[in-house]
Amino acid sequence: MMSASQCYSKQDFETFEKRFQTTFFNSLSGFKSLNLVGSCDAQGSTNLTLVNSVFHVGANPPLIGLVFRPNSVPRHGLENILETESFTLNHVSKAMLERAHQSSARYDRNVSEFDACEFNREYGAIKAPYVQESQVKIGLKLAEVLPVELNATTIIISEIQEVILPNSAVGDDGYVDLEKLGSLTCAGLDAYFQPQFLKRLSYPKVDRPVQALGGQDRK
Amino acid sequence: MMSASQCYSKQDFETFEKRFQTTFFNSLSGFKSLNLVGSCDAQGSTNLTLVNSVFHVGANPPLIGLVFRPNSVPRHGLENILETESFTLNHVSKAMLERAHQSSARYDRNVSEFDACEFNREYGAIKAPYVQESQVKIGLKLAEVLPVELNATTIIISEIQEVILPNSAVGDDGYVDLEKLGSLTCAGLDAYFQPQFLKRLSYPKVDRPVQALGGQDRK
Repeated sequence: MMSASQCYSKQDFETFEKRFQTTFFNSLSGFKSLNLVGSCDAQGSTNLTLVNSVFHVGANPPLIGLVFRPNSVPRHGLENILETESFTLNHVSKAMLERAHQSSARYDRNVSEFDACEFNREYGAIKAPYVQESQVKIGLKLAEVLPVELNATTIIISEIQEVILPNSAVGDDGYVDLEKLGSLTCAGLDAYFQPQFLKRLSYPKVDRPVQALGGQDRK
Repeated sequence: MMSASQCYSKQDFETFEKRFQTTFFNSLSGFKSLNLVGSCDAQGSTNLTLVNSVFHVGANPPLIGLVFRPNSVPRHGLENILETESFTLNHVSKAMLERAHQSSARYDRNVSEFDACEFNREYGAIKAPYVQESQVKIGLKLAEVLPVELNATTIIISEIQEVILPNSAVGDDGYVDLEKLGSLTCAGLDAYFQPQFLKRLSYPKVDRPVQALGGQDRK
């Protein structure tokens, strides 16, 4: 049974201890997508980093947004993307989880997280490397850079160039079955979850109630 | 057993039927957060709409990003936010799901989705209404508007002013237990999932393997 609700005001936020504040606000807004970003510099040295800030921007053309936080340490991934205008997104499944989380450690530039975290590189139509172990691989080209003035964050918008995934996971209507693919979700900085399918719902119309779609999306 | 992987190129995307393309790219990039956006115009007329495009921008100050797609029909929610600089995010749990999905139907401006979808309004420190039924309520103030030139999408960055949630769901370290709160996740336009907790992992360090954190986050 849930306890009574508490209201936290801006004044309360100011009393939060720094680490508490980071953890609280990172988990607050809901579950997020989990992707490994693969990139390389002009010389081909590779980098891999885990992100939970991918968002959908459009389907035609297919555009994805990604947030890079300001940081006092170098952000090799972002530097590579700005340099080569190319990167990959790679879904994370259960067997990859510990290694994927480990890729966020602050490795020196001369160490590739592919090697340090024991992932294999795979190459396709773009310069940046895919994670071979990943079930869903998305190749992207940098398209627009949006600086967020408030906190020195950088949002990049990129166009999908290539998608590699098992075709049995793509439905007749284009639906990608992420549960079948074993893709995970996350909350905050360190909590990981396996989503269980509830239902798909019909296109909402003003004049009729929504209904669960038929079994097409289940095994 | 998963079938062999297929590679879809940009040339393949061009052969996609429009609806297939929308469904494919909406579900491709991973699970997303699920929130009802509560807003009102200057006169106090309320609007409610379901979004899956919330992303974390920063914890100090607490900033959240939200994408509004370009649309040939009016976007009352975005209009309200630009007018009042105020809105709420409200998590969606299983008992709210059908009603929340229904709120995306194209209601006339003079119909409030709160009434049409049978949600109750609740008011706090900001002008915009919360969804009373929601376990996690976040009040925000518009802070920055970022137009995406590529496809006429609008990204807004907002600062959290107030948070209302059961205090039993907030851990000693600030971790918000979304599983305990019953928050759902979604993929694409119409598929909903209940995440099951796997583990929290220790802060990644270069010189040691990550470990599952102790049971503090489990019941």
